[in-house]
Amino acid sequence: LLTCPQCFLQGILERLDAGEIVIGDGGFVFALEKRGYVKAGPWTPEATVEHPEAVRQLHREFLRAGSNVLQTFTFYASEDKLENRGNYVAEKISCHKVNEAACDIAREVADEGDALVAGGVSQTPSYLSCKDKSEVKAAFQKQLEVFMKKNVDFLIAEYFEHVEEAVWAVEVLKESGKPVAATMCIGPEGDMHGVSPGQCAVQLVKAGASIVGVNCHFDPETCIETVRLMKEGLQAAKLKAHLMCQPLAFHTPDCGKQGFIDLPEFPFGLEPRIATRWDIQKYARKAYDLGIRFIGGCCGFEPYHIRAIAEELAPERGFLPEASEKHGSWGDNLSMHTKPWVRARARKEYWENLKPASGRPYCPCMSKPDGWGVTRGAKELMQQKEATTEQQLKELFQKKKF
Amino acid sequence: LLTCPQCFLQGILERLDAGEIVIGDGGFVFALEKRGYVKAGPWTPEATVEHPEAVRQLHREFLRAGSNVLQTFTFYASEDKLENRGNYVAEKISCHKVNEAACDIAREVADEGDALVAGGVSQTPSYLSCKDKSEVKAAFQKQLEVFMKKNVDFLIAEYFEHVEEAVWAVEVLKESGKPVAATMCIGPEGDMHGVSPGQCAVQLVKAGASIVGVNCHFDPETCIETVRLMKEGLQAAKLKAHLMCQPLAFHTPDCGKQGFIDLPEFPFGLEPRIATRWDIQKYARKAYDLGIRFIGGCCGFEPYHIRAIAEELAPERGFLPEASEKHGSWGDNLSMHTKPWVRARARKEYWENLKPASGRPYCPCMSKPDGWGVTRGAKELMQQKEATTEQQLKELFQKKKF
Amino acid sequence: LLTCPQCFLQGILERLDAGEIVIGDGGFVFALEKRGYVKAGPWTPEATVEHPEAVRQLHREFLRAGSNVLQTFTFYASEDKLENRGNYVAEKISCHKVNEAACDIAREVADEGDALVAGGVSQTPSYLSCKDKSEVKAAFQKQLEVFMKKNVDFLIAEYFEHVEEAVWAVEVLKESGKPVAATMCIGPEGDMHGVSPGQCAVQLVKAGASIVGVNCHFDPETCIETVRLMKEGLQAAKLKAHLMCQPLAFHTPDCGKQGFIDLPEFPFGLEPRIATRWDIQKYARKAYDLGIRFIGGCCGFEPYHIRAIAEELAPERGFLPEASEKHGSWGDNLSMHTKPWVRARARKEYWENLKPASGRPYCPCMSKPDGWGVTRGAKELMQQKEATTEQQLKELFQKKKF
Amino acid sequence: LLTCPQCFLQGILERLDAGEIVIGDGGFVFALEKRGYVKAGPWTPEATVEHPEAVRQLHREFLRAGSNVLQTFTFYASEDKLENRGNYVAEKISCHKVNEAACDIAREVADEGDALVAGGVSQTPSYLSCKDKSEVKAAFQKQLEVFMKKNVDFLIAEYFEHVEEAVWAVEVLKESGKPVAATMCIGPEGDMHGVSPGQCAVQLVKAGASIVGVNCHFDPETCIETVRLMKEGLQAAKLKAHLMCQPLAFHTPDCGKQGFIDLPEFPFGLEPRIATRWDIQKYARKAYDLGIRFIGGCCGFEPYHIRAIAEELAPERGFLPEASEKHGSWGDNLSMHTKPWVRARARKEYWENLKPASGRPYCPCMSKPDGWGVTRGAKELMQQKEATTEQQLKELFQKKKF
Repeated sequence: LLTCPQCFLQGILERLDAGEIVIGDGGFVFALEKRGYVKAGPWTPEATVEHPEAVRQLHREFLRAGSNVLQTFTFYASEDKLENRGNYVAEKISCHKVNEAACDIAREVADEGDALVAGGVSQTPSYLSCKDKSEVKAAFQKQLEVFMKKNVDFLIAEYFEHVEEAVWAVEVLKESGKPVAATMCIGPEGDMHGVSPGQCAVQLVKAGASIVGVNCHFDPETCIETVRLMKEGLQAAKLKAHLMCQPLAFHTPDCGKQGFIDLPEFPFGLEPRIATRWDIQKYARKAYDLGIRFIGGCCGFEPYHIRAIAEELAPERGFLPEASEKHGSWGDNLSMHTKPWVRARARKEYWENLKPASGRPYCPCMSKPDGWGVTRGAKELMQQKEATTEQQLKELFQKKKF
Repeated sequence: LLTCPQCFLQGILERLDAGEIVIGDGGFVFALEKRGYVKAGPWTPEATVEHPEAVRQLHREFLRAGSNVLQTFTFYASEDKLENRGNYVAEKISCHKVNEAACDIAREVADEGDALVAGGVSQTPSYLSCKDKSEVKAAFQKQLEVFMKKNVDFLIAEYFEHVEEAVWAVEVLKESGKPVAATMCIGPEGDMHGVSPGQCAVQLVKAGASIVGVNCHFDPETCIETVRLMKEGLQAAKLKAHLMCQPLAFHTPDCGKQGFIDLPEFPFGLEPRIATRWDIQKYARKAYDLGIRFIGGCCGFEPYHIRAIAEELAPERGFLPEASEKHGSWGDNLSMHTKPWVRARARKEYWENLKPASGRPYCPCMSKPDGWGVTRGAKELMQQKEATTEQQLKELFQKKKF
Repeated sequence: LLTCPQCFLQGILERLDAGEIVIGDGGFVFALEKRGYVKAGPWTPEATVEHPEAVRQLHREFLRAGSNVLQTFTFYASEDKLENRGNYVAEKISCHKVNEAACDIAREVADEGDALVAGGVSQTPSYLSCKDKSEVKAAFQKQLEVFMKKNVDFLIAEYFEHVEEAVWAVEVLKESGKPVAATMCIGPEGDMHGVSPGQCAVQLVKAGASIVGVNCHFDPETCIETVRLMKEGLQAAKLKAHLMCQPLAFHTPDCGKQGFIDLPEFPFGLEPRIATRWDIQKYARKAYDLGIRFIGGCCGFEPYHIRAIAEELAPERGFLPEASEKHGSWGDNLSMHTKPWVRARARKEYWENLKPASGRPYCPCMSKPDGWGVTRGAKELMQQKEATTEQQLKELFQKKKF
Repeated sequence: LLTCPQCFLQGILERLDAGEIVIGDGGFVFALEKRGYVKAGPWTPEATVEHPEAVRQLHREFLRAGSNVLQTFTFYASEDKLENRGNYVAEKISCHKVNEAACDIAREVADEGDALVAGGVSQTPSYLSCKDKSEVKAAFQKQLEVFMKKNVDFLIAEYFEHVEEAVWAVEVLKESGKPVAATMCIGPEGDMHGVSPGQCAVQLVKAGASIVGVNCHFDPETCIETVRLMKEGLQAAKLKAHLMCQPLAFHTPDCGKQGFIDLPEFPFGLEPRIATRWDIQKYARKAYDLGIRFIGGCCGFEPYHIRAIAEELAPERGFLPEASEKHGSWGDNLSMHTKPWVRARARKEYWENLKPASGRPYCPCMSKPDGWGVTRGAKELMQQKEATTEQQLKELFQKKKF
């Protein structure tokens, strides 16, 4: 028996309060972009209506890999975002339908195993453009109504660059009475307004979040460091909360403050940065050692990365995920390979110490982020009235050398 | 309309003879290993019986990405191989069932679009261990019976390291009366017995193959070079055949004669070598320019890589694949990104010239293959009688430093 | 006329007080090791007696390259050090002789141009082993006697890992009445006892140093950052001093607290890290912009690196060094090359933006320093009484894998 | 006693015929460029007259490092070349004077030890521009007259890109009656007219060269491969000659046919490619194993690289060079370093296996040579009459992006 019987039917807080490890899932927009169902750029989840079988299959793979939480595929599914990017959607699909379908698919798969369904909201264009609190909150409220109707198990406010907006989201979600988790897409330097990770965590917990942490934008090592700062902030404020981490599965030591979006490789040249399963096992161990108990992934995480978390922490949990029937610990299944020198790789020591080559001798190891420089340039151009629309701005950028 | 009406219902040779470009699919064992359904090491396809929905979904993604050929997932599905690795399969599944299920799933998805089904056989343990011609041929014969019963559209003999065995496979398949394609997993140095690519191609065509080329083991550039040598060999022998190429989606400039299996990163540390979509567009163009018209992929190819072939060759073909509704040419969908500096990446010149960084400054760019050295060592050990079984041999290897 | 007439015959402080840029020289032990006159490991300067012509030639090259200060080659020339390493010196050479010869050679060459002679002392084995203040001061006193007898123009206490010892050195040197400069071989993390760069600078100025800064152990970027912290420390303490910087000519972004000594490449595999002349021009500009006016180099600096400082700052100074007769600004002498595409490299933009390749695809870009781990291991081993002598300790280390 | 008594006073052929290893010296133009006495671009040797002490010192260092042959610093010292580049020389210095001074300095230093003096000629601008045989031969004849007057021990025709010109040089030198060595600056692809290395060797031996091989333009590994092809060519032609190799001390696996000149790093960004002493020891061993007995270096070789050859081959020769008094075999002098973890590096296994990091994570490992592309472009531009002078051509190039 591969599942964990005692945690069956328990809620997220019961599990975490009991000291259990809860494994999250991976990032849907990147995985489904590679499978052909999501458009990079808008990154919206209309696939829940257009191609439910593809979304269902990905949920199923994460479940099988060990995920205890299936997040509804409602990233960027606020009404303002979907309308904003509506011209990309073949037939006009309502925000409501996208969110409902996402809940149905997640529940269907969750019921095939021992997983909870988490309804998710993320940052909105409304906040970025006008910052009107009631308008932003109304967007979250609309999504929440679907989540309540579909009776998700708990709620996650994720991918916020500004703690102010995240707090507003938590406030909305909290009214539902369901447990709320909140993660920001920030690094050790804090949010885009300069609020430190420790302060972000304090504000989120005070707003009602029971679980806080980070997701996306940075590699595992950087995310763990950010959660460490959050933990210190909470301790200093004498607040308690569970910790959560859902990083990229990309190596990004060269990021600036705004994370991987500013790297020149984002989003179509990130392949050489993809983490191996062994990188993820190291991440899972470090996260666990810091006291993080909700451990998952974001963009770049494929099912085998989630399985790597479950395998690394199998000794603590006492069981393996279902997908481990197709994977030996530390590559021991290679002992059945036809070549003896490949069989000789069937051991932990080998994979733990491997420094994998890129096969790309004409490429560098690190990049200079280009975001901030361009931003500054954009502001200047705007002020000089050379560009008054975004299209003009883009044209001006394209004339420059990056 | 995204499909190509005039080619609907035509066979593989009609298409190629008419000068059409035929796009293959990607490698199933690597893609499904990451999704949790295939075990690295044995690499057998029991998932067709155990998890048909996962196999079906992957076929569907390739179809959507532009594949005109769906290969039955029957890699290493000969009876001798499945028995050999049988202890990995949860419940004993017969070779017959695996092959039948593979045909049914491929046909089901092919009928959703304009794709042909190709039944595939690959090299056998029987050949490697005993080399008895009738025994090896019997293994192919068994698979062929299923392919005939299920009425696949044509046949592919692929992944052969020795042209002798490939010829035997072609001879068996040819008796069916269906068109036969044959690809070897070799590089410019030729097969494991030292037969040159040109000679391999000549032997395969003489045995009855209408389409010849290479698959797996090497990166696109190396595979194209190998097909170029095959083309020269055929020209010198005044033989005609269609050319085919299904390479790795990994950068492997540092391979030895036996390809990526000997690289220290195989199979669990290959991530930094994964090709970008732009690398694959370059490959598609080069393959086309050499005269290759059956252009697909093998291990490492995900649906978005196949889409890249279809997008690169869209001008020649006059249409885009279905999945391009979620992908702009050369990243032009980024023009809708929220950050202006990411919008500035929405152009061909940017992605074509990007040298993507690995984010791994402690890793090298190239590796030394370890296979041949170990082989030599193995032979010596065997001769010294220190190891008489494979298990003993493995233990001896593990004591050494690689 | 290539020299600067108005500064002729002026002292170091007159020059710096007048706002002039003073250019130091490069590191003698590394340069002369490559020429065959210094032994890596002991790094002692007996060449002043054994091969004065080689020392003289190197001084002359630095003078010609633009150095305004010639440091006596008295690194590690304290009596305790020379005795300690005495078994390496072919015939026993007294500390006194080494220091005298060093002064004579430096003066001889300085008089060929417009350079000052600086007598230099550096950290002592006495401090590291016993920490007895009077004993350590006596070692400096002995060297100072030679410097006074030979009438050097000013004094430099350099290459100190502990500010405590550096202060003792300054106290001794200060009694001479000559101007004293003091540089530590530390990075932004401060000295080996944890004293911050700012605090180090404050203590050195209070002890009597007129010029403070850093030398050796780190690359130019890191050294400039350390001097920046020193500057801030002095400003906070309302103290005034001239700033000085003499970094490595190696790229060492991966250093730990103790600098390049802990990198696995030290000292015989540092070649791929050597700075280009363009790297040094960037360094000179950055140093100047921070307000540093005594700008030189340490290990790895060859004459052409010093010339690069002088060329970068030629606009500010109004003159070029003598050796620039054999070097065009930003490579413009390439305009006389026989190949047109090499002539096309005769421009600043080309060299400024070049990212030079290593030609070593099997090597990584960064290394993990090994020093601290081994140190901790060493301490443990000592405590476990497995090793009671250094020789035993070394043997124990050598059994381990690094 | 460090020298080899039995070879004292013997000529080059006596030594080689007796099976002795003869060690060459390193490249003067690169070493003296870094010291400030040679201008990159023209690369002419007027320093023999302008700064004889600098030339003398470098000869002395090579002698001390183990060189058995001191080449006169007469590279590019033909009259046509010196006149061509004459505007770079401060006061007009005659070709005759440069060559005479070079001979005098080399002889003076050679007499301090056991070294032979070799007079050297290299390719001429006359050949490249007009190809008139008598004119080209006259240039060599003029230099030969000086060599004969100064009574050098033997002659070297080196750095020829075209075997036709090299043969002319050998024919001129041969008339002197002195032994003649001839090396070309070619790689395995052969000379610029497409003559293979094997054919080059045959032509040179037939013209009268007793020693043949390669120098400059490629890294040690590539040069050895080229000499191997020469050896095979001679064997096939049943000719006998001694073999000689004087490669770059740079890693250049990414060179095209014309060698390192076409790499974007040439000549001012080659630092990351500099060979370590351990790389050179491997080179010396490989060269020896192939049967090469005249083993030296060219551009990039510093005295410590020559010492590395002498140390690697000390077991075969029975003695060490003088400069080894300052160098322990395989770093064993580090056993006296103050830090225990550096002492632990005092062993062959450590340095032999080190993969040295570049400290440059933003730089690639390999470059694309730019020469041929530009050349082709240049030809087109010329034909299009857009550029009629070299200056115009350069301006056109500079407008393009490299």
